[in-house]
Parts: sequence; C-alpha cells; structure tokens
Amino acid sequence: MLCGMQAHDGPLTRLRKSHEQSVLDLLRKHGPLSRAELGAHSGLSRTTLYDIVAGLVEGGTVVAATPPAEVRRRGRPVEKLSLNPHAGEAVGIDFARRAVHVSAINVAHEMIGSASEAHAPGLTWNQRADIAERLLGSLGGAPPRGAAAHGSAPRGASAGRAPRRGTLRLGALSAIGVGVVGPLIDVGGTDAREGSLDGLPGLLHERFGVPVLLDNNTRLAALAEAVWGAAADSGDVLYVRLSHGVGGGLVVGGSLHRGMYGMSGEFGHVTVDPDGVPCQCGGTGCLETVASIDAVLQRYRAAGGRAEDVTAFLAAAASGDDTAHAVLARAGTAVGTVLAAVCNAVGPGVIVIGGELAEAGATLIEPVERALHTHVMPLVRDRVRVRRATLGEAGSALGGIALVLHESPLLSRYPQPATEEHA
Amino acid sequence: MLCGMQAHDGPLTRLRKSHEQSVLDLLRKHGPLSRAELGAHSGLSRTTLYDIVAGLVEGGTVVAATPPAEVRRRGRPVEKLSLNPHAGEAVGIDFARRAVHVSAINVAHEMIGSASEAHAPGLTWNQRADIAERLLGSLGGAPPRGAAAHGSAPRGASAGRAPRRGTLRLGALSAIGVGVVGPLIDVGGTDAREGSLDGLPGLLHERFGVPVLLDNNTRLAALAEAVWGAAADSGDVLYVRLSHGVGGGLVVGGSLHRGMYGMSGEFGHVTVDPDGVPCQCGGTGCLETVASIDAVLQRYRAAGGRAEDVTAFLAAAASGDDTAHAVLARAGTAVGTVLAAVCNAVGPGVIVIGGELAEAGATLIEPVERALHTHVMPLVRDRVRVRRATLGEAGSALGGIALVLHESPLLSRYPQPATEEHA
Repeated sequence: MLCGMQAHDGPLTRLRKSHEQSVLDLLRKHGPLSRAELGAHSGLSRTTLYDIVAGLVEGGTVVAATPPAEVRRRGRPVEKLSLNPHAGEAVGIDFARRAVHVSAINVAHEMIGSASEAHAPGLTWNQRADIAERLLGSLGGAPPRGAAAHGSAPRGASAGRAPRRGTLRLGALSAIGVGVVGPLIDVGGTDAREGSLDGLPGLLHERFGVPVLLDNNTRLAALAEAVWGAAADSGDVLYVRLSHGVGGGLVVGGSLHRGMYGMSGEFGHVTVDPDGVPCQCGGTGCLETVASIDAVLQRYRAAGGRAEDVTAFLAAAASGDDTAHAVLARAGTAVGTVLAAVCNAVGPGVIVIGGELAEAGATLIEPVERALHTHVMPLVRDRVRVRRATLGEAGSALGGIALVLHESPLLSRYPQPATEEHA
Repeated sequence: MLCGMQAHDGPLTRLRKSHEQSVLDLLRKHGPLSRAELGAHSGLSRTTLYDIVAGLVEGGTVVAATPPAEVRRRGRPVEKLSLNPHAGEAVGIDFARRAVHVSAINVAHEMIGSASEAHAPGLTWNQRADIAERLLGSLGGAPPRGAAAHGSAPRGASAGRAPRRGTLRLGALSAIGVGVVGPLIDVGGTDAREGSLDGLPGLLHERFGVPVLLDNNTRLAALAEAVWGAAADSGDVLYVRLSHGVGGGLVVGGSLHRGMYGMSGEFGHVTVDPDGVPCQCGGTGCLETVASIDAVLQRYRAAGGRAEDVTAFLAAAASGDDTAHAVLARAGTAVGTVLAAVCNAVGPGVIVIGGELAEAGATLIEPVERALHTHVMPLVRDRVRVRRATLGEAGSALGGIALVLHESPLLSRYPQPATEEHA
C-alpha cells in the first residue's frame, strides 16, 4: 500500500512552489547568496524574489545573516541568505513492532539526525505518533560533517540516540515517509496485522500537514541499504532482515520492487522445513520459524542456554558460547538455503543481511555463506557478495526519506505518491 | 550476454532510414497509398520520396500495384504502394538443444509464420544456421488473418510447421533475435555449455547482414508469453519451462529481468532434495533432477513404465496410466514448492508453465497448484494465477522477435543492443 495524502494545489500555489524550489536549488548549489545574486541567478523579478525569500525565511527554511565585520567591504553590509541546517525537508518514521525510529534530512539534503525509542506493545497509533513527534523534536543539531543524504551513507544515522542541540524545524517539511510492519496489500484493504492502518496516514497528515507515504518497513530498509548503505554500488540487491520477524526486499535491475499486490521480499515465509512448526502466517516450517529472534531465543533456551533477550544472546555468542553458535549456525544455514533459491531465480549482485541477529557477525554470516554456496548455481557462486547491513536500526526511517525524495533512479519505476485524499 | 552487431551508419544513411521509416509507418497506418498521397502525408519532396520508394520497392519491402480496372477512375491508373506481406522485418531463431525454431514478422508487424526442425545432437553452428536459413526460406505465405504481432497472440505460431506458399523475402530484414540454451554470462566469456557461442553472432551477421541479438532461449520464451501469450495481461510474470532442462524467466514490475551477470530465472537449479542425485550444473538434488523430461522418463521407466520418448509418456499419461500420473505428481509437487519460494520473494501476478511436460495439462498443473498453495504465503494464495503457456515451441523464436523490436514496455529497462563489433 502506498498511501499518498496531498493537498490539492491551485496553479498559483504551484507557481510559487516552483519559484521557492528555484531559490532553494540555488542556495543548495552555491551556498550563501545575497538577494541580488539570487535575483541574477534565478531571473525572478525583484518583487517576486523578495516575496519568495520572505516566505522562506518566515517558514524557517532559509536564514539570513550578515557576514562578520572583518570580511565586510566598505559600505552597507550585504545580508546573505542560506539554507537553515535545522529545517527538515523530509522525515522518515519507522513504526517497528515495539519501537519508533525517526530520521530527518534538511533542505540541503544533509542528514539532520536519527532517533529511536522502544515502547511497550499495544500502543495506539496516536501514542506511537506522539513518540515520533517527540523524537523529531529532539533532532535539529548540526548535521554530521560530510553526511550528504545522496550518494554516500548518512553517517551518524545509528548514533542518533544521543541528545542533540537545537530543535528540528518542521516548517519546511515537504513530506513524510512511513514504514510499518507487515505485508501491505491494497490501499485500505484488510490484512493479517493486528489493528488497521486505515487511520494512520490521516492522523499523520493532520499532525504534520504534509503528504504521507506508507510502505512496508523492511522494504524501506532494503531501499536505504541500496541507496546509501551496504549495497550502494549495486542495482541488483537482495536484502534480508533477521529481527522479530524475517523479511526482506529486492532491488531488481536498478528498481525497488514491490511485486504484484505489494507482496514481495517475503523470504521469511519460504518453507524450510515442511515438518516444522506452525508459522504466524498460517504456513508451516517457514524460515521465520527458524531464523527470527524469537525462534533463535527459544531454541537457545531449549538447549539449556540462558538469555533474557537478544542482546544477552548476542553477548553469549560473542563470548564463544557453543550453544549460541550452534543455534546461529542452524538459523544461518536455513537463511542461506532460502537465499540460494531466490538467488537462482533473481540473480542479485549483492546480498545484504540486516536485523539484530546480523550483529552476531561471522558466527551467523559464515553459515549463511556456506549454505548459499552449497545451493546456489556454481556459475553464480563467486559472483554474488554477502554483506552485513550498515545503516542499523535507522535503516527503515532512512528508507522512508528515500521514498519521499523519490529522486533515486532506484524508484524510477516505483508507484508515485497518489494525490487523492485517503481518510 | 546480449551481443549486438550493427553496421556503423553515417548521418546520411540515418536520415535515409528515417525517411524510409516514415513511409513504412504511413503504409502501416493507412494501407495502400499512391505516391501523391505519400508525399502529402510525409512532407517529403517529390524527388526524395520517389527515391525512397524506389529503394523500398527494389528491396522488396514495398510492392506497387495498380487497382483492378473496375475500381479505377477514368484516366491514367494511379499506382498504389503497399507493404509487402512477404517481406520480413524481424526474424527470431531459437537454437534449442536438438531443434531449430524460427519465426518471422513482416514490415506491418504481422506474423508471417513459424517453422521448426528437429536435428541430431552435435551439429556445428554452421549446420544449425543452415537449418535456420532453410526454415526461413520456407516461410512467406500470407499472414494469418488478424494476427498482428503487437497486443494479441500471433496466431498460427504453433501451426507453423505446415508447408507455406511463397518465400520469405529477407531484403527488408532489420534484425535477428536469437535464443540459445544455457545461462549466458558476460560477453565472450566462457560458460558451462558444450562448445562456445563466440562465433555464432558473427556467423549469423555474415549470412543475413543485419544486427544479431543473442539471449537465453528460455528467457525469450518468458518474454514472448508476457508480450503475446498466457501472461499478456500482467506486468509481473514468473515463467517456468519443463523441457529437457528446467529453466524460466521473470518479468518484474513490467520489465523483463536479466539479473546481474545475465543469470536469472534459473528455477531448475533450486535445490529440492539435498539428498538427491547430482545435477549437470554441479549441484545436488536440483529441481531439474526431478522435473525435467529426462528425469521424469527415467523415473517412469524405473517404476516399470514403458515410453520411448516424452510423446509416448504424455500419451500414457493422457490414457490414465497411474504410474505416469504418480511421476507427474511428484514432478509437479517439486515445481510448486520452488514456485512458492520464488513467489514469496518476487510476488508475481501470473505464473506460466511451459515446455513439453506442460502438455500433460491438469495431471501436472494440479499438483503444481497444490504445492504452491501449501507453501506460498496465505495472503497471496488466491491472488496468483497459474496458467499453461500458449505459444508452444515457437515461444523462444517469438521472444527473439520481441527482443529485436525492443518496442514493448517490457523491455524498457533491458539492455539496448551493443553497437560494437563482436567477433
């Protein structure tokens, strides 16, 4: 489901927006400029330009400053205009199972920051939106140096939980990309998840007053890894996430792939053991029943291991616990077997493994690679590369931003935001 | 591997070709036209138009005819020009394991016909090209009524073995699309097939004097089914062919998918039985070891069945032979299980099953559907449709034509023909 909420703009508003965009593009390209310089570059009349600039300054997108005395020429100081590094242009929100993650980029397409907060299960969408709003308010520090949101990994993405100076100004916001758990079939349709998403786009639109795009959060993480992360060099990417659920996403021939009905990348529900245990999807012996956090913890405990949660389990694995290693090897083997099948079918260049379990590193990745190499076509064996995800828990929120920007060639064939109102 | 052979055209040749194309487009659109009418529609000068038309008539692309006496007005009869229905614009050749299949469309993009010939194993490329040339020479009858090559299935495609009147004129040929067996990795690279393909494009280019595009023949069959065949209504298609080998192809988000390194759709080498028999690919227990013609025949004979070849086996199945049904059920179950995995990963709308074994109909298809429904995500179960291929053995040759035309939106992201010489 890709829900777009867009106010219907009249032609005058559109013209104004186009002028604003020209001004912002010039400031992005040239850095600080005076009004006279902006006028010369943009070709706008003095009256129009002053009006547009006034609006941008008032909205917080652009800041005006006079250069320090020592660099001034004689005469009246010339005010320079520049992009406000605290003005968010696009925001990504990931409503994960029990946590909310947010990321924001500024009008110069630089990373402002990311933030996360865990929460109890069973919260309403309103409560979860509260958390998102609070987290966004906590952003707004200076952007990490050199962390452009295009072409390179937005550094600082996973270090976003540290308190930040300043406050993100949402006045310049153009859109919000939102990731949610579970397969999304049809706009407004019913699906297998607890609760309905029907109210979410409207609720967020009401709070933030900008278009809201909704997609599966694992697919958004795949997008982010392909745009800025571990697979930024490949147009054919298979991403699998080993978290509370097991899911993934595909970038196929340079495009993020949704699949018919929005169903794709559901690697977690490929059968790996026809005699296995029931899966929440209704199937039996799905990969998720072997390689999710819960499945791994359950097996670890059944084998006598003691771990309160996945963090404790990963610590045990890191300390050389044989039981933990055996459990990870079994999960990794199942993952590699499924990846081999998908690999034969789709032929990716890079496989990216993300989610909390990927933090086990080689203990998990090596069994994945062994099973992959055993089952994938020999001709492909040495051509496909397996890598760990690099964007961490912020991945889906960053993918939300990538979705909203809709500028990556990866999205050239992805559905465009709908302009219909959707309640 | 996509090998293009293209003569380097100068700007004058390109201009002439563009004029020729305008004239052909007008004749395609309006039917027979006089030179005066062509001049009025095309905007070309009288001198240029007469020159262009003369070349087209000489090359056999256009034929000139005076209308019968009873429809003539008084005065000098006006000669009308029309497209020559026997002039091939594009030709597809499928060099299958032990047969050559050809198809041709005329300059009006109507199907001229298809033809096939089985041959002994071990022929040289020269010998196989001889067969292709002879088969093409046997085409050239009147095109089947209403069989436009775009938008509807080219009828008569599988009935093409009947002798035909007339002879295909290759003077107007623009390109040849060629399907070959086996995965194609890298241009000019070595691969696992017997013999090299290196000489093939050059050999065909020399014989026919037009660009030659080479691709995997099963992928071309997938393309043809998606353009004109069983899945012409879907942009997300999974095609699997059960023949001497088991392979397939993917149409993903409205585009034919090659995969990184040209490897994709290799469903035949997905492991279905880790304890199974060795596969020619180097793996163990691949789908091909269970669901290829040879695997099915071997199992049938081991269970006491007697069948000289696949035709005899299919006849036995059609007559209700329990052993044949059991063998087909086993193969179909394996196919359905692999399709379910790929389905979860890719999310197609239509699955097309082709190849000789698909001719068994429900005896094969029903076990496929049962296994698919057992293993695919419940949310998808009722949304994906399984269909038999409709283009028969001409499928790959037709796909070669589709590749050459490169007009289908399905190919919008497919590599364009290379213009480098490739020896």
